[in-house]
Amino acid sequence: MPGSIYGRLMREIQNLFANLPASLPKELVQPLLQTPDFRIERIVSHGHASPEGFWYDQHTDEWVLLVNGAARLQFEGEEPVEMKAGSFVNISAHQKHRIDWTDPNQPTIWLAIYSTLSDEE
Amino acid sequence: MPGSIYGRLMREIQNLFANLPASLPKELVQPLLQTPDFRIERIVSHGHASPEGFWYDQHTDEWVLLVNGAARLQFEGEEPVEMKAGSFVNISAHQKHRIDWTDPNQPTIWLAIYSTLSDEE
Repeated sequence: MPGSIYGRLMREIQNLFANLPASLPKELVQPLLQTPDFRIERIVSHGHASPEGFWYDQHTDEWVLLVNGAARLQFEGEEPVEMKAGSFVNISAHQKHRIDWTDPNQPTIWLAIYSTLSDEE
Repeated sequence: MPGSIYGRLMREIQNLFANLPASLPKELVQPLLQTPDFRIERIVSHGHASPEGFWYDQHTDEWVLLVNGAARLQFEGEEPVEMKAGSFVNISAHQKHRIDWTDPNQPTIWLAIYSTLSDEE
């Protein structure tokens, strides 16, 4: 699924575990669906983590599900929390967070859903 | 997670595989998140299928991911197609479809995302 599938035949069945790159120098972010109201992305990590001291500070809410693998998610001012297959969390806009760790021994596959509406609009 | 988690602490990490009922007389549908723009649901099937001749005819688009288990999805006028862990598909509003079969030997867990905007509004 290189790039976006938006615009492809609607009823085509695809698989979230397909087309995993053999090597992953950087985290892979792929849009799966873009609507006027929300965006769905597949994110693949393989040992990637946020740099020390880096915090995501997003303008939209993010609902994220760890579909495969393992990770530690950290909210600002808190200890990192474990995420495993099936773990999900809703991250409000401007809730600062970082990925403390992802499993170096297997791909960690996330499904992320972002509100399209931004507080900047 | 009985019922909706909407309104619970935003940064609480939950698990899609938790709180599976021991027996499931009917398909289980649980809202996970409701926003003005979209709704996320967990659906658990265990051998459940649509009655012969029944077709879903929805007023909103549905993006659905099979997270665990196995199923066959049928679009009107087509043969059923297999879905397994990781399979996902976008079902446009009014694209008639039914669940032909779900695995009787394990729970089939779906994640469904519905546009809030309906063509009836």
